[in-house]
Amino acid sequence: MLSAPVTPHAVGAGVFVAFEGGDGAGKSTQARLLGDWVGEQGREVVLTREPGGTELGRTVRDVVLHGDHVTPRAEALLFAADRAHHVASLVRPALDRGAVVLTDRYVDSSIAYQGAARELACAEIRDLSLWATQGLLPHLTVLLDVAPKQGRARRGDVHDRLEREGEDFHDRVRRGFLDLAAADPSRYLVLDGDKPPEELHEAVVDRFRRLDQARAS
Amino acid sequence: MLSAPVTPHAVGAGVFVAFEGGDGAGKSTQARLLGDWVGEQGREVVLTREPGGTELGRTVRDVVLHGDHVTPRAEALLFAADRAHHVASLVRPALDRGAVVLTDRYVDSSIAYQGAARELACAEIRDLSLWATQGLLPHLTVLLDVAPKQGRARRGDVHDRLEREGEDFHDRVRRGFLDLAAADPSRYLVLDGDKPPEELHEAVVDRFRRLDQARAS
Repeated sequence: MLSAPVTPHAVGAGVFVAFEGGDGAGKSTQARLLGDWVGEQGREVVLTREPGGTELGRTVRDVVLHGDHVTPRAEALLFAADRAHHVASLVRPALDRGAVVLTDRYVDSSIAYQGAARELACAEIRDLSLWATQGLLPHLTVLLDVAPKQGRARRGDVHDRLEREGEDFHDRVRRGFLDLAAADPSRYLVLDGDKPPEELHEAVVDRFRRLDQARAS
Repeated sequence: MLSAPVTPHAVGAGVFVAFEGGDGAGKSTQARLLGDWVGEQGREVVLTREPGGTELGRTVRDVVLHGDHVTPRAEALLFAADRAHHVASLVRPALDRGAVVLTDRYVDSSIAYQGAARELACAEIRDLSLWATQGLLPHLTVLLDVAPKQGRARRGDVHDRLEREGEDFHDRVRRGFLDLAAADPSRYLVLDGDKPPEELHEAVVDRFRRLDQARAS
Protein backbone atom coordinates (compact mmCIF):
# COMPACT_ATOMS: atom_id res chain seq x y z
CA MET A 1 0.00 0.00 0.00
CA LEU A 2 1.25 3.43 -0.92
CA SER A 3 0.53 5.73 1.96
CA ALA A 4 1.57 9.36 2.20
CA PRO A 5 1.44 11.50 5.32
CA VAL A 6 -1.55 13.31 3.83
CA THR A 7 -1.77 17.06 4.34
CA PRO A 8 -5.27 17.75 3.06
CA HIS A 9 -4.37 21.36 2.36
CA ALA A 10 -1.18 23.13 1.51
CA VAL A 11 1.21 23.91 4.32
CA GLY A 12 3.27 27.06 4.86
CA ALA A 13 2.10 30.64 4.80
CA GLY A 14 1.26 30.70 1.10
CA VAL A 15 -1.90 29.99 -0.87
CA PHE A 16 -2.06 27.22 -3.45
CA VAL A 17 -4.66 27.44 -6.25
CA ALA A 18 -5.05 24.98 -9.14
CA PHE A 19 -6.84 25.72 -12.41
CA GLU A 20 -8.39 22.66 -14.00
CA GLY A 21 -10.52 21.85 -17.02
CA GLY A 22 -10.35 20.55 -20.56
CA ASP A 23 -8.36 22.01 -23.43
CA GLY A 24 -9.30 25.56 -24.35
CA ALA A 25 -11.33 26.08 -21.16
CA GLY A 26 -9.39 29.23 -20.32
CA LYS A 27 -7.22 27.91 -17.48
CA SER A 28 -4.05 29.79 -18.38
CA THR A 29 -5.97 33.04 -19.03
CA GLN A 30 -7.68 32.87 -15.64
CA ALA A 31 -4.45 31.90 -13.86
CA ARG A 32 -2.70 34.88 -15.44
CA LEU A 33 -5.53 37.30 -14.60
CA LEU A 34 -5.59 36.15 -10.97
CA GLY A 35 -1.79 36.35 -10.89
CA ASP A 36 -1.91 39.96 -12.10
CA TRP A 37 -4.51 40.81 -9.47
CA VAL A 38 -2.55 39.17 -6.63
CA GLY A 39 0.63 40.89 -7.81
CA GLU A 40 -1.15 44.26 -7.67
CA GLN A 41 -1.79 43.59 -3.97
CA GLY A 42 1.99 43.54 -3.51
CA ARG A 43 2.23 39.79 -2.91
CA GLU A 44 4.61 37.30 -4.49
CA VAL A 45 2.94 35.23 -7.20
CA VAL A 46 4.32 32.07 -8.80
CA LEU A 47 2.58 31.05 -12.04
CA THR A 48 3.34 27.50 -13.04
CA ARG A 49 1.94 24.50 -14.92
CA GLU A 50 1.95 20.71 -15.14
CA PRO A 51 3.52 19.06 -16.93
CA GLY A 52 6.28 21.46 -17.78
CA GLY A 53 6.86 23.73 -14.77
CA THR A 54 10.42 22.41 -14.40
CA GLU A 55 13.12 21.03 -16.69
CA LEU A 56 12.07 17.48 -15.79
CA GLY A 57 8.47 18.47 -16.50
CA ARG A 58 9.37 19.66 -19.98
CA THR A 59 11.05 16.31 -20.68
CA VAL A 60 7.97 14.44 -19.44
CA ARG A 61 5.73 16.69 -21.51
CA ASP A 62 7.77 15.94 -24.63
CA VAL A 63 7.69 12.20 -24.04
CA VAL A 64 4.00 11.92 -23.19
CA LEU A 65 2.49 14.45 -25.57
CA HIS A 66 4.78 14.20 -28.56
CA GLY A 67 6.80 11.00 -28.22
CA ASP A 68 6.07 7.39 -29.03
CA HIS A 69 3.15 5.62 -27.52
CA VAL A 70 3.64 4.83 -23.85
CA THR A 71 1.31 2.58 -21.87
CA PRO A 72 -1.28 4.16 -19.53
CA ARG A 73 0.65 3.06 -16.44
CA ALA A 74 3.94 4.46 -17.73
CA GLU A 75 2.16 7.71 -18.61
CA ALA A 76 0.58 7.98 -15.14
CA LEU A 77 3.96 7.34 -13.49
CA LEU A 78 5.68 9.96 -15.66
CA PHE A 79 3.10 12.58 -14.73
CA ALA A 80 3.48 11.58 -11.06
CA ALA A 81 7.29 11.91 -11.34
CA ASP A 82 6.89 15.37 -12.83
CA ARG A 83 4.48 16.30 -10.04
CA ALA A 84 6.81 15.02 -7.30
CA HIS A 85 9.66 17.10 -8.67
CA HIS A 86 7.48 20.15 -9.36
CA VAL A 87 6.06 20.18 -5.83
CA ALA A 88 9.37 19.55 -4.04
CA SER A 89 11.49 21.95 -6.09
CA LEU A 90 9.06 24.77 -6.87
CA VAL A 91 5.61 24.67 -5.20
CA ARG A 92 6.51 23.86 -1.58
CA PRO A 93 9.46 26.28 -1.38
CA ALA A 94 7.22 29.07 -2.75
CA LEU A 95 4.42 28.27 -0.29
CA ASP A 96 6.96 28.23 2.55
CA ARG A 97 8.01 31.76 1.51
CA GLY A 98 4.36 32.85 1.70
CA ALA A 99 3.83 33.14 -2.06
CA VAL A 100 0.57 32.61 -3.90
CA VAL A 101 1.16 29.64 -6.23
CA LEU A 102 -1.16 29.31 -9.23
CA THR A 103 -0.82 26.12 -11.25
CA ASP A 104 -2.32 25.36 -14.65
CA ARG A 105 -3.33 21.69 -14.02
CA TYR A 106 -2.55 19.51 -11.00
CA VAL A 107 -3.78 16.22 -9.47
CA ASP A 108 -7.30 16.48 -10.90
CA SER A 109 -6.02 16.48 -14.46
CA SER A 110 -4.25 13.19 -13.85
CA ILE A 111 -7.38 11.67 -12.32
CA ALA A 112 -9.60 12.95 -15.14
CA TYR A 113 -7.28 12.11 -18.05
CA GLN A 114 -5.55 8.94 -16.81
CA GLY A 115 -8.28 7.66 -14.51
CA ALA A 116 -11.77 8.71 -15.52
CA ALA A 117 -11.09 8.70 -19.26
CA ARG A 118 -8.80 5.65 -19.50
CA GLU A 119 -8.70 2.24 -17.91
CA LEU A 120 -6.83 3.03 -14.69
CA ALA A 121 -8.62 3.32 -11.35
CA CYS A 122 -9.15 6.93 -10.23
CA ALA A 123 -8.29 5.97 -6.65
CA GLU A 124 -4.94 4.56 -7.77
CA ILE A 125 -4.08 7.70 -9.73
CA ARG A 126 -5.01 9.80 -6.71
CA ASP A 127 -2.87 7.66 -4.38
CA LEU A 128 0.04 7.93 -6.79
CA SER A 129 -0.23 11.74 -6.77
CA LEU A 130 -0.57 11.90 -3.00
CA TRP A 131 2.51 9.71 -2.59
CA ALA A 132 4.39 11.83 -5.14
CA THR A 133 3.52 15.13 -3.43
CA GLN A 134 3.52 13.87 0.16
CA GLY A 135 -0.14 14.75 0.32
CA LEU A 136 -0.12 18.32 -0.96
CA LEU A 137 -3.55 19.41 -2.22
CA PRO A 138 -4.55 22.95 -3.27
CA HIS A 139 -6.50 25.27 -0.97
CA LEU A 140 -8.76 25.95 -3.93
CA THR A 141 -9.32 24.35 -7.31
CA VAL A 142 -10.97 26.49 -10.00
CA LEU A 143 -12.68 24.19 -12.50
CA LEU A 144 -13.43 25.86 -15.83
CA ASP A 145 -16.12 23.72 -17.40
CA VAL A 146 -16.76 23.85 -21.15
CA ALA A 147 -18.23 21.41 -23.62
CA PRO A 148 -15.22 19.64 -25.23
CA LYS A 149 -16.20 20.74 -28.74
CA GLN A 150 -16.25 24.40 -27.78
CA GLY A 151 -12.97 24.20 -25.91
CA ARG A 152 -11.26 22.55 -28.83
CA ALA A 153 -12.71 25.00 -31.32
CA ARG A 154 -11.19 27.83 -29.27
CA ARG A 155 -7.80 26.18 -29.26
CA GLY A 156 -7.73 25.91 -33.05
CA ASP A 157 -5.34 23.31 -34.44
CA VAL A 158 -5.23 20.03 -32.65
CA HIS A 159 -1.58 19.54 -31.82
CA ASP A 160 -0.80 16.86 -29.26
CA ARG A 161 -1.62 13.24 -28.59
CA LEU A 162 -4.22 13.80 -25.85
CA GLU A 163 -5.96 16.47 -27.89
CA ARG A 164 -6.28 14.08 -30.81
CA GLU A 165 -8.41 11.65 -28.77
CA GLY A 166 -12.08 11.33 -29.76
CA GLU A 167 -15.15 13.13 -28.40
CA ASP A 168 -16.01 10.26 -26.04
CA PHE A 169 -12.65 10.58 -24.35
CA HIS A 170 -13.06 14.31 -23.79
CA ASP A 171 -16.61 13.83 -22.52
CA ARG A 172 -15.29 11.35 -19.93
CA VAL A 173 -12.56 13.83 -18.95
CA ARG A 174 -15.19 16.56 -18.43
CA ARG A 175 -17.36 14.22 -16.34
CA GLY A 176 -14.27 13.21 -14.33
CA PHE A 177 -13.55 16.84 -13.39
CA LEU A 178 -17.20 17.54 -12.46
CA ASP A 179 -17.36 14.41 -10.28
CA LEU A 180 -14.24 15.47 -8.37
CA ALA A 181 -15.73 18.93 -7.75
CA ALA A 182 -19.07 17.46 -6.66
CA ALA A 183 -17.34 15.19 -4.15
CA ASP A 184 -15.59 18.06 -2.33
CA PRO A 185 -17.53 21.30 -3.01
CA SER A 186 -15.85 23.38 -0.30
CA ARG A 187 -12.51 23.07 -2.10
CA TYR A 188 -13.82 23.85 -5.61
CA LEU A 189 -15.09 26.77 -7.61
CA VAL A 190 -16.85 25.46 -10.72
CA LEU A 191 -17.37 28.06 -13.45
CA ASP A 192 -19.00 28.01 -16.86
CA GLY A 193 -16.00 28.54 -19.13
CA ASP A 194 -18.23 29.94 -21.87
CA LYS A 195 -18.76 33.15 -19.92
CA PRO A 196 -16.62 36.21 -20.74
CA PRO A 197 -13.10 36.06 -19.21
CA GLU A 198 -13.63 39.27 -17.19
CA GLU A 199 -16.79 37.91 -15.58
CA LEU A 200 -15.01 34.66 -14.73
CA HIS A 201 -12.08 36.62 -13.32
CA GLU A 202 -14.39 38.53 -10.97
CA ALA A 203 -15.81 35.28 -9.65
CA VAL A 204 -12.28 33.88 -9.14
CA VAL A 205 -11.11 37.01 -7.28
CA ASP A 206 -14.22 36.98 -5.11
CA ARG A 207 -13.59 33.37 -4.09
CA PHE A 208 -9.87 33.94 -3.61
CA ARG A 209 -10.59 36.90 -1.30
CA ARG A 210 -12.92 34.83 0.85
CA LEU A 211 -10.39 32.00 1.03
CA ASP A 212 -7.68 34.44 2.05
CA GLN A 213 -9.86 36.00 4.75
CA ALA A 214 -10.83 32.60 6.10
CA ARG A 215 -7.17 31.57 6.31
CA ALA A 216 -6.11 34.83 7.98
CA SER A 217 -8.74 34.64 10.70
CA MET B 1 -3.92 1.89 -1.82
CA LEU B 2 -2.13 0.85 -4.98
CA SER B 3 -3.05 -2.70 -5.69
CA ALA B 4 -1.97 -4.70 -8.70
CA PRO B 5 -3.36 -8.04 -9.78
CA VAL B 6 -0.14 -9.68 -8.59
CA THR B 7 1.30 -12.48 -10.69
CA PRO B 8 4.03 -13.77 -8.39
CA HIS B 9 5.87 -15.24 -11.34
CA ALA B 10 6.07 -14.37 -14.97
CA VAL B 11 3.25 -15.50 -17.22
CA GLY B 12 3.45 -16.90 -20.73
CA ALA B 13 5.62 -19.70 -22.00
CA GLY B 14 8.92 -17.87 -21.55
CA VAL B 15 11.42 -17.65 -18.71
CA PHE B 16 12.25 -14.36 -17.01
CA VAL B 17 15.60 -13.98 -15.22
CA ALA B 18 16.91 -10.82 -13.56
CA PHE B 19 20.55 -10.11 -12.75
CA GLU B 20 21.02 -7.86 -9.73
CA GLY B 21 23.89 -6.46 -7.71
CA GLY B 22 26.00 -3.37 -7.22
CA ASP B 23 28.11 -1.63 -9.84
CA GLY B 24 30.85 -3.77 -11.29
CA ALA B 25 29.43 -7.01 -9.86
CA GLY B 26 29.44 -8.66 -13.29
CA LYS B 27 25.69 -8.56 -14.05
CA SER B 28 25.99 -7.75 -17.75
CA THR B 29 28.78 -10.31 -18.24
CA GLN B 30 26.74 -13.09 -16.63
CA ALA B 31 23.57 -12.08 -18.50
CA ARG B 32 25.48 -12.19 -21.79
CA LEU B 33 27.09 -15.56 -20.99
CA LEU B 34 23.73 -17.10 -20.06
CA GLY B 35 22.20 -15.52 -23.18
CA ASP B 36 24.88 -17.15 -25.36
CA TRP B 37 24.28 -20.52 -23.71
CA VAL B 38 20.49 -20.32 -24.10
CA GLY B 39 20.91 -19.22 -27.71
CA GLU B 40 23.08 -22.28 -28.35
CA GLN B 41 20.11 -24.42 -27.26
CA GLY B 42 18.20 -22.93 -30.19
CA ARG B 43 15.89 -20.78 -28.07
CA GLU B 44 15.01 -17.13 -28.50
CA VAL B 45 16.87 -14.90 -26.04
CA VAL B 46 16.10 -11.26 -25.26
CA LEU B 47 18.88 -9.42 -23.42
CA THR B 48 17.71 -6.16 -21.90
CA ARG B 49 18.37 -3.73 -19.05
CA GLU B 50 16.80 -1.18 -16.75
CA PRO B 51 16.79 1.70 -17.06
CA GLY B 52 17.46 1.98 -20.74
CA GLY B 53 15.91 -1.06 -22.44
CA THR B 54 13.56 1.19 -24.45
CA GLU B 55 13.63 4.72 -25.85
CA LEU B 56 11.71 5.96 -22.79
CA GLY B 57 14.20 4.11 -20.60
CA ARG B 58 17.12 5.90 -22.19
CA THR B 59 15.42 9.24 -21.50
CA VAL B 60 14.85 8.25 -17.88
CA ARG B 61 18.44 7.09 -17.60
CA ASP B 62 19.71 10.41 -18.89
CA VAL B 63 17.53 12.41 -16.51
CA VAL B 64 18.24 10.36 -13.40
CA LEU B 65 21.90 9.52 -13.86
CA HIS B 66 23.21 12.57 -15.67
CA GLY B 67 20.63 15.34 -15.28
CA ASP B 68 19.89 17.81 -12.53
CA HIS B 69 19.10 16.64 -9.07
CA VAL B 70 15.64 15.13 -8.79
CA THR B 71 14.01 14.28 -5.47
CA PRO B 72 13.94 10.64 -4.28
CA ARG B 73 10.20 10.35 -4.98
CA ALA B 74 10.54 11.74 -8.50
CA GLU B 75 13.45 9.38 -9.12
CA ALA B 76 11.48 6.35 -7.88
CA LEU B 77 8.52 7.31 -10.07
CA LEU B 78 10.73 7.76 -13.14
CA PHE B 79 12.26 4.31 -12.67
CA ALA B 80 8.75 2.88 -12.19
CA ALA B 81 7.58 4.59 -15.40
CA ASP B 82 10.52 3.10 -17.28
CA ARG B 83 9.73 -0.33 -15.81
CA ALA B 84 6.03 -0.10 -16.72
CA HIS B 85 6.92 0.72 -20.31
CA HIS B 86 9.75 -1.82 -20.50
CA VAL B 87 7.56 -4.66 -19.23
CA ALA B 88 4.52 -3.82 -21.37
CA SER B 89 6.36 -3.12 -24.60
CA LEU B 90 9.28 -5.58 -24.46
CA VAL B 91 9.31 -8.12 -21.59
CA ARG B 92 5.72 -9.41 -21.64
CA PRO B 93 5.49 -9.75 -25.43
CA ALA B 94 8.78 -11.71 -25.43
CA LEU B 95 7.59 -14.00 -22.61
CA ASP B 96 4.32 -14.54 -24.46
CA ARG B 97 6.33 -15.68 -27.50
CA GLY B 98 8.16 -18.17 -25.28
CA ALA B 99 11.48 -16.31 -25.22
CA VAL B 100 14.02 -16.33 -22.40
CA VAL B 101 14.24 -12.74 -21.16
CA LEU B 102 17.39 -11.74 -19.26
CA THR B 103 17.36 -8.30 -17.68
CA ASP B 104 20.31 -6.42 -16.21
CA ARG B 105 18.54 -4.92 -13.12
CA TYR B 106 14.82 -5.02 -12.26
CA VAL B 107 12.59 -4.42 -9.21
CA ASP B 108 15.27 -5.31 -6.65
CA SER B 109 17.55 -2.53 -7.85
CA SER B 110 14.82 0.01 -7.18
CA ILE B 111 14.19 -1.39 -3.72
CA ALA B 112 17.92 -1.50 -2.88
CA TYR B 113 18.87 1.90 -4.34
CA GLN B 114 15.72 3.96 -3.71
CA GLY B 115 14.42 2.11 -0.66
CA ALA B 116 17.12 0.46 1.41
CA ALA B 117 19.80 3.06 0.69
CA ARG B 118 17.65 6.21 0.75
CA GLU B 119 14.78 7.47 2.85
CA LEU B 120 11.85 5.85 1.03
CA ALA B 121 10.08 2.79 2.42
CA CYS B 122 11.06 -0.46 0.68
CA ALA B 123 7.44 -1.64 0.76
CA GLU B 124 6.33 1.50 -1.07
CA ILE B 125 8.97 1.08 -3.77
CA ARG B 126 7.93 -2.55 -4.18
CA ASP B 127 4.23 -1.61 -4.44
CA LEU B 128 5.09 1.03 -7.03
CA SER B 129 6.94 -1.56 -9.13
CA LEU B 130 4.18 -4.13 -8.79
CA TRP B 131 1.60 -1.55 -9.86
CA ALA B 132 3.83 -0.49 -12.77
CA THR B 133 4.36 -4.05 -14.01
CA GLN B 134 0.96 -5.45 -13.07
CA GLY B 135 2.72 -7.80 -10.73
CA LEU B 136 5.38 -9.29 -12.98
CA LEU B 137 8.27 -10.80 -10.99
CA PRO B 138 11.14 -12.90 -12.42
CA HIS B 139 11.18 -16.67 -12.19
CA LEU B 140 14.75 -16.36 -10.97
CA THR B 141 16.91 -13.50 -9.71
CA VAL B 142 20.68 -13.97 -9.84
CA LEU B 143 22.28 -11.75 -7.21
CA LEU B 144 25.98 -11.11 -7.80
CA ASP B 145 27.33 -10.01 -4.46
CA VAL B 146 30.58 -8.07 -4.23
CA ALA B 147 32.01 -5.66 -1.69
CA PRO B 148 31.23 -2.16 -3.04
CA LYS B 149 34.91 -1.14 -3.13
CA GLN B 150 35.86 -4.10 -5.30
CA GLY B 151 32.96 -3.62 -7.67
CA ARG B 152 33.77 0.03 -8.14
CA ALA B 153 37.46 -0.68 -8.63
CA ARG B 154 36.52 -3.05 -11.46
CA ARG B 155 34.37 -0.43 -13.11
CA GLY B 156 37.20 2.08 -13.22
CA ASP B 157 36.10 5.69 -13.67
CA VAL B 158 33.17 6.80 -11.62
CA HIS B 159 30.79 8.27 -14.13
CA ASP B 160 27.24 8.75 -12.93
CA ARG B 161 25.39 10.28 -10.02
CA LEU B 162 24.56 7.05 -8.17
CA GLU B 163 28.11 5.79 -8.51
CA ARG B 164 29.42 8.99 -6.93
CA GLU B 165 27.54 8.29 -3.68
CA GLY B 166 29.66 7.42 -0.61
CA GLU B 167 30.68 4.01 0.75
CA ASP B 168 27.84 3.99 3.30
CA PHE B 169 25.30 4.30 0.53
CA HIS B 170 26.76 1.36 -1.41
CA ASP B 171 26.97 -0.74 1.76
CA ARG B 172 23.26 -0.14 2.36
CA VAL B 173 22.53 -1.08 -1.27
CA ARG B 174 24.44 -4.35 -0.84
CA ARG B 175 22.60 -5.13 2.39
CA GLY B 176 19.30 -4.32 0.67
CA PHE B 177 19.94 -6.88 -2.07
CA LEU B 178 21.02 -9.57 0.42
CA ASP B 179 17.92 -8.99 2.57
CA LEU B 180 15.64 -9.40 -0.46
CA ALA B 181 17.34 -12.69 -1.36
CA ALA B 182 17.18 -13.96 2.22
CA ALA B 183 13.44 -13.24 2.37
CA ASP B 184 12.62 -15.39 -0.68
CA PRO B 185 15.44 -17.94 -1.16
CA SER B 186 13.58 -20.16 -3.65
CA ARG B 187 13.50 -17.34 -6.16
CA TYR B 188 17.17 -16.29 -5.78
CA LEU B 189 20.61 -17.52 -6.66
CA VAL B 190 23.17 -15.58 -4.63
CA LEU B 191 26.73 -15.81 -5.93
CA ASP B 192 30.05 -14.41 -4.79
CA GLY B 193 30.86 -11.97 -7.58
CA ASP B 194 34.58 -12.20 -6.83
CA LYS B 195 34.75 -15.70 -8.28
CA PRO B 196 35.94 -16.18 -11.88
CA PRO B 197 33.25 -15.42 -14.50
CA GLU B 198 33.34 -18.96 -15.93
CA GLU B 199 32.75 -20.53 -12.53
CA LEU B 200 29.84 -18.15 -11.90
CA HIS B 201 28.46 -18.93 -15.34
CA GLU B 202 28.43 -22.67 -14.57
CA ALA B 203 26.45 -22.06 -11.39
CA VAL B 204 23.97 -19.85 -13.30
CA VAL B 205 23.49 -22.46 -16.05
CA ASP B 206 23.02 -25.20 -13.46
CA ARG B 207 20.30 -23.22 -11.70
CA PHE B 208 18.67 -22.17 -14.96
CA ARG B 209 18.51 -25.83 -16.10
CA ARG B 210 16.80 -26.88 -12.89
CA LEU B 211 14.32 -24.02 -13.14
CA ASP B 212 13.56 -24.96 -16.73
CA GLN B 213 13.02 -28.62 -15.83
CA ALA B 214 10.76 -27.72 -12.92
CA ARG B 215 8.65 -25.49 -15.18
CA ALA B 216 8.43 -28.12 -17.92
CA SER B 217 7.27 -30.85 -15.56
